[in-house]
Amino acid sequence: MKIGLLGHGVVGKGVSRICDASEILQIKRILVKDDWELTDPRCTQNVQEILDDPEIDVVVECMGGIEPARSFLMKALQNGKHIVTSNKKMLANCSKELFAEAKKNNVSIHYEATCGGGIPWMASLERILRIDPIDSFRGIFNGTTNYILSRMDEESLEFEPLLKEAQKLGYAEQNPSDDIDGMDVRYKVALSCMKAFKVMPVLEEIPTYGIRYIQKKDLDYAKSQGMTCKLVGRAVNDGKCIQASVMPVFLKKEDVLANVSMNFNAIESDSPTLGKAVFTGQGAGSLPTAHAVVQDIYDIAYNEAMDTVDAAIAPVVNNKEKTFYLRTVNLSLYEAVCKEKIDENTCLTKKITLDELHALIGKNEDKDLFVAEVQE
Amino acid sequence: MKIGLLGHGVVGKGVSRICDASEILQIKRILVKDDWELTDPRCTQNVQEILDDPEIDVVVECMGGIEPARSFLMKALQNGKHIVTSNKKMLANCSKELFAEAKKNNVSIHYEATCGGGIPWMASLERILRIDPIDSFRGIFNGTTNYILSRMDEESLEFEPLLKEAQKLGYAEQNPSDDIDGMDVRYKVALSCMKAFKVMPVLEEIPTYGIRYIQKKDLDYAKSQGMTCKLVGRAVNDGKCIQASVMPVFLKKEDVLANVSMNFNAIESDSPTLGKAVFTGQGAGSLPTAHAVVQDIYDIAYNEAMDTVDAAIAPVVNNKEKTFYLRTVNLSLYEAVCKEKIDENTCLTKKITLDELHALIGKNEDKDLFVAEVQE
Repeated sequence: MKIGLLGHGVVGKGVSRICDASEILQIKRILVKDDWELTDPRCTQNVQEILDDPEIDVVVECMGGIEPARSFLMKALQNGKHIVTSNKKMLANCSKELFAEAKKNNVSIHYEATCGGGIPWMASLERILRIDPIDSFRGIFNGTTNYILSRMDEESLEFEPLLKEAQKLGYAEQNPSDDIDGMDVRYKVALSCMKAFKVMPVLEEIPTYGIRYIQKKDLDYAKSQGMTCKLVGRAVNDGKCIQASVMPVFLKKEDVLANVSMNFNAIESDSPTLGKAVFTGQGAGSLPTAHAVVQDIYDIAYNEAMDTVDAAIAPVVNNKEKTFYLRTVNLSLYEAVCKEKIDENTCLTKKITLDELHALIGKNEDKDLFVAEVQE
Repeated sequence: MKIGLLGHGVVGKGVSRICDASEILQIKRILVKDDWELTDPRCTQNVQEILDDPEIDVVVECMGGIEPARSFLMKALQNGKHIVTSNKKMLANCSKELFAEAKKNNVSIHYEATCGGGIPWMASLERILRIDPIDSFRGIFNGTTNYILSRMDEESLEFEPLLKEAQKLGYAEQNPSDDIDGMDVRYKVALSCMKAFKVMPVLEEIPTYGIRYIQKKDLDYAKSQGMTCKLVGRAVNDGKCIQASVMPVFLKKEDVLANVSMNFNAIESDSPTLGKAVFTGQGAGSLPTAHAVVQDIYDIAYNEAMDTVDAAIAPVVNNKEKTFYLRTVNLSLYEAVCKEKIDENTCLTKKITLDELHALIGKNEDKDLFVAEVQE
């Protein structure tokens, strides 16, 4: 099986290292961007040497970013090549056209590495789906924010210095927005819906709140209630619509997700006969993520799990009533939904749907608030 | 695909329920023991109607016990049928002859349901093994004892009344020995070694300690050290030999296994590129265990994961030095290994290998002691 690899950064290097140790997976060409990356005779700066090579069966994309990754993969599909990608942003935004093209050319798209690093999340979903429909899933999908939240909780630290430290350690990007504003988790929730429910939620309709404005005192409050704060992505398929959200949740200490610490990820599925199952592991990192990519390549090699599902687009509705924790300098704007004031900037809401709260926050143009769901 | 089902108890009923809802899995005959079980036209009390039926491709055994399960399955293999079993005791004791017979007849043996109920543990190991060797695994493999330990810890209760309650709830057998003395976990550790390491440890060589003699004060001590007690099965393949044991371990509260509560199971694997991955879920119960059985049937239907490995038998060596907690009325017999006395019956040992301690306990014929490893 001959492979063309697009991108030779952290994940791409892991992929070539694992494939080079394998007897059946052969990387023929590696696309790199800069001259200094031409360290291997297989490296090229000309993508056509990969996309137009009839010997290459699989194109593996570890470039990141929407373009030119999307265009390269469209071309690869048109040329009859299977694709494997670790690029959640690109796939979450372009799934419709990519899957349509894959179907047309009778090839498949594999994306285990887009969610949960090395955790076999997509493979586990596919396996469960042989027997059960998936009712719901929820999880800690982002290692960077979990690292920050864990250390804030355990060491009573503030957010900003920890973000700087995470950047220094390479856990967080220099532009950390995708991580700390929850966009990274939004992509992963959407792709998990596509696998679990066979429908793709409208990305912009998934209410997405991050941890950019969290303070030590928010965690202190959670702790005083026997809880801890985690950034949780989740979705429920109730048969009629998709409920999906990304937001901080104050979880009871005994909740299985409350005890997932540092840069680990954990995702729980719920289905009729298997019940709740939780998959925990390294959410990122060169070798764990590359492991997931190479598992996809083996699935193609062994002709397993051909995923050519052209998922319908589904609207998102969040109509279950819940209690929320709100901290904002504009608390007076939330009087109608406030049930219990904690201090002059902070309250617990009465039971309200996320759709109602999300609309209210939008109307108030309240961008600096910190909001968390409080687990019942 | 036509199936013959042996046994129609808790798990067997779950299997027929799931298969009857499937379009491709057809249960043709069900072996039952007693007249009152003849509730379905497919039921029979004559096993030959299953074993000798050339239309039946797969024999699924959910009877429990070594005989007659072993003889029936040997006959099924000789007649060219694949087998699926949830019977850990039988398979751990008879794997050698069953796998040899399977190999001879070019059929396969599937046993996902023997370990961790519905958790896709064996399937996950097989998937990881496509890329990585498994270095080690450890886990909570028994829901009954975990239920008792969780409630002892959370509610400061004694062992005996909780065991009685677990028996009343149907979580524990009327003869609870296999659960509380650790034998059930021993079988699961051995079968996991067979899958993970491709070698089968000698069952009797796995030091196996249960929780029969645990007292509230042992958990109080663990708690005073920031720890909790779990019954842990584990094994390490260091290339030269297999280290394997079943024993209570005082785990630090932040350990991922320390937070697995009630009747849940959780198993962690460690391998070079994936790193640590943890699989958590229902460790028992009709539908979760039946889910695992039916996954095996699908693997056969889809011709995946043919396991005909005839694992070599491997000796067990536990030669890593550790600290142990010992409580016994015969504490004076352990003076040579005692480092710190906690009270007149209880001590922490100096660093010692489990092999040395196990030999000493055997020599002292000290059957009523409670022993736990203390996590470093």
